Amino acid sequence: MKRTHQKFSVVRGGVTTAKGFLANALYSGIKKSGRKDLALLYSVSPAVASAAFTTNAFVSSSIELTREHLRSKTTRALIVNSGNANCAVGRTGYGDARLMARLAARELGIEPVEVLVASTGVIGKRMPIDSVSKAIPELARGLDRGKGGVFAEAILTTDTRKRESCVRLEIGGKEVTIGGTAKGAGMIYPELKTENHATLLSFITTDADISKGLLDEALEEAIGQSFNMISVDGDMSTNDTVLAFANGLAGNERISGKGSDFENFKAGLDYVMGELARMVVRDGEGATKFIEVKVKGARSMADARRIARKVTTSNLLKTCVHGGDPNWGRIIASAGSSAVAFRPEKVDVYLGGIKVVSAGARFEKAAAKRLKDVFMKKDVAITVDLKSGRGEAIAWTCDLSKEYVNINAEYST
Amino acid sequence: MKRTHQKFSVVRGGVTTAKGFLANALYSGIKKSGRKDLALLYSVSPAVASAAFTTNAFVSSSIELTREHLRSKTTRALIVNSGNANCAVGRTGYGDARLMARLAARELGIEPVEVLVASTGVIGKRMPIDSVSKAIPELARGLDRGKGGVFAEAILTTDTRKRESCVRLEIGGKEVTIGGTAKGAGMIYPELKTENHATLLSFITTDADISKGLLDEALEEAIGQSFNMISVDGDMSTNDTVLAFANGLAGNERISGKGSDFENFKAGLDYVMGELARMVVRDGEGATKFIEVKVKGARSMADARRIARKVTTSNLLKTCVHGGDPNWGRIIASAGSSAVAFRPEKVDVYLGGIKVVSAGARFEKAAAKRLKDVFMKKDVAITVDLKSGRGEAIAWTCDLSKEYVNINAEYST
Repeated sequence: MKRTHQKFSVVRGGVTTAKGFLANALYSGIKKSGRKDLALLYSVSPAVASAAFTTNAFVSSSIELTREHLRSKTTRALIVNSGNANCAVGRTGYGDARLMARLAARELGIEPVEVLVASTGVIGKRMPIDSVSKAIPELARGLDRGKGGVFAEAILTTDTRKRESCVRLEIGGKEVTIGGTAKGAGMIYPELKTENHATLLSFITTDADISKGLLDEALEEAIGQSFNMISVDGDMSTNDTVLAFANGLAGNERISGKGSDFENFKAGLDYVMGELARMVVRDGEGATKFIEVKVKGARSMADARRIARKVTTSNLLKTCVHGGDPNWGRIIASAGSSAVAFRPEKVDVYLGGIKVVSAGARFEKAAAKRLKDVFMKKDVAITVDLKSGRGEAIAWTCDLSKEYVNINAEYST
Repeated sequence: MKRTHQKFSVVRGGVTTAKGFLANALYSGIKKSGRKDLALLYSVSPAVASAAFTTNAFVSSSIELTREHLRSKTTRALIVNSGNANCAVGRTGYGDARLMARLAARELGIEPVEVLVASTGVIGKRMPIDSVSKAIPELARGLDRGKGGVFAEAILTTDTRKRESCVRLEIGGKEVTIGGTAKGAGMIYPELKTENHATLLSFITTDADISKGLLDEALEEAIGQSFNMISVDGDMSTNDTVLAFANGLAGNERISGKGSDFENFKAGLDYVMGELARMVVRDGEGATKFIEVKVKGARSMADARRIARKVTTSNLLKTCVHGGDPNWGRIIASAGSSAVAFRPEKVDVYLGGIKVVSAGARFEKAAAKRLKDVFMKKDVAITVDLKSGRGEAIAWTCDLSKEYVNINAEYST
C-alpha cells in the first residue's frame, strides 16, 4: 500500500488484481512491429458490465458488436486487439468482431453474447482475421491472474508505457478492489457517453457486488472528471471505449442504493480513472510536459468544463509551454473563444500560483523571472478564475513538441 | 490585368488602388525588430465603413473604440499598429486607442470619430504610446497613393510576406475598384461577426458608391466564404478585425438595392476576400502545404461548414499531410467528431480526386502509389461527400510542421 487517500488505499495492480479476473496476451500477426496485439480478460464468475463509447459518427465495428452484447445481463470476457481499429472496412468489420467473440466464447465455454470486443489502431484496413482467429485458443489457454500487466502492454499502440491503477477499500466489512488499465497517446479528445458510447481504451475490473444501474452511474460520473477532461491533440477517435466489470466476488452486501457504500465505491473508481486519464496525457504523443487547467468561478460546472477543455486544445498554449514561454495572452484568448459568456473584466489568471492577470488585465507585479521558472517545470498548473459563480472543472493536456509532428507525419506508412 | 474571372478583372493592387485612398507606414518603436509597425489609411472623401470583429470574450481595446466610432455615419481614416494587441492592459488600452485616433484626426483635419483603430501583436503589454504618438504627424504627412504596399507590410507580425488582392469591374458604365490586404499567420481561426465583431486583420477599400446597409451585407456574406473558413492553428484571436471602406469616388449610380450591380459588386468582393484568406493560410506559421477541405451533400450549408471547419483543425490530418502520408482515417474520424448528425455508411471521400472511401468503407481500388503522390504535392484537396443533401462548403488550412512548434515555443520572449 503506497499511500492512503480518503477511504481507500492505493495499491499496485491492474485488471487482474480484483478477485476472479484472469488475463492473457500474445502476438497474433496484426502489428508490423511484432509486439503483442491481442489480449483477453476473463471473469471466473458472471459480471455486470458498464460501458461508454465514442460519440463519433464513424464508429468501429467492434463497438457496434459490443453494444449489442451489452444487452446481455452478464458479461464474462473481453477480447481486445491493437494495431487495427476495425473501422471503415465495410461489413467485414462486424463479421470479424463477431468471429473474435465467438471463438473466444467457444474456448471459454461461455456464450458469445457474454464476450465484448474492443479495437485500436489504423482506420480503414481489414484485420488479418485468419491469424487472429488461430491465436485465440492459445490466448484462452494462457489465462492467468498474474498477467494483468501483460494485458496492459498488449493494448498499446503509439503509447510508450503501460498504465495501471488500483485501489482497495472496505465495503460492509469486506475488502473490495478496483483496478484498471488504459491506452491512448494520440487521437485523444474523448467525448464518451455511457450506454451509447478513445482511441482511448480503458478497462476497469472490480470484485465489488454492485447493481448494473449504479455501476453505470458511477462510471458516467467518473468519466466526466477523468477521460472526458483530457486532450492530447483535440482529435476524437472512432474507437474510444471504456468498460467496467463488477463480478461481486468480494462478497460484500450488494450495493443497490445510494449511500455511504456507493460513495466510497465512487471515490475509489474516480481515483483509479483519474490516475489512468492523467497517465494517458503524461505519455501523450511527443509529450515532454503535463499541463493542468483549472477553471473556477464559472456560472456552472458545464461552463467551467467547456472553457477548461477549450484551453487544453490550444496549440498556441501547448507550444509556449513546450518552449517554457509564459505567454498567458494565449490562455485568455483561448478561454474567451469557448463560446461561454463571461465578464472578461472580472477574470484572474494564475500560472503555478503566480497571479498574472487581475480583473481582466495584466497584473503588473508578476515577476517575469519567477514566471519563466514556473513555465520551465515539467508540470505546469494554470488557473482561470471567472469570479462569477461556483462552477469548477479541471482539464489536462500535454505540450506540443516537434516529436509530436515526427510521430504523426508518418504513422500509417 | 492578369486574368479575367466572371464579370471582373483581377489587377495588381491593394488598399490604395481604388480612387481616393492614400496610405503610409513607418517604424514607431513598438517592434523589437525595428520593422514598420504603424500604418495609416485615409480616404480623401468620406466613406461608409462596414466592420466585422472577433467573437472572443476578451477583446482588444482598439476594437472597443472602433465599435464606438463606427456609429459615425462616415469614416475617413484607419490607424493600425502591429507588434502589440492592445488587449488585457486595463483601462489604459482604451485611452491609448483613443489618443491614436485623436492625434491622427488632428493631423488630418477630421473628427476623431471618423478614425478607426486596429491592433495586432502580443497580448497583455502596454503600447509605447509616447513614441507611437510622436510618430503620427510624420505618418500623416507621408500619405500617398503609392504606399498601399508599404501599408500591407507594416501590419504584419509573424507573417513572412504581404498580401494584396484587387479587382476591377464596371457598374453602371463606371469603373469600380475593390482592393484589400490582410495579415495573419498564427492564432488564426476567425469567427467574425459583422457589426459586433484574427489576429486576422483585413482592410478592403473600394471607390464604389454603395449604401452602408448593402456594404454590411456584402461583407458578411464574403466573410462567410473566406476568413470564417480558414484555420492555421484553431486558435481564435482577441483582435480579429475586418474593415471595408467605400468612398463612392467611382461615380457610379449608388448601389442601394439588390440587383445585378449588387451581385457584381459582391462577386468582386468575394474574390478579393477569398484570395486574401487563402494567402493567409498559405503563409500560415510553419506552413509548407495548403489543404482544401470541401464538404458536399450535407443536409445544410451550416452542417457542411461545421464539418469542413472541424476537419481543418485536426492536428492529426495536418501532420500526415505534412509527412505526405495519405492516412484518410484521420479525415473521417475528424468529420465524425463535428457533432453534425449524418449517416457514415453513405459517405464517400476523395483525396485529390481519387476515391478512397466509398459508402463509409475503404474503397479497395484506391492505388496506394497514386495516393501517396497526391499527398506529396504542395496543394492537397480533400472532398467529403455525405450524399444526404445539397449543403456545401469549403474550408482551408495548412500543414502542421516542426517549424510551427519552433515559431510558437518562443514567441513572446
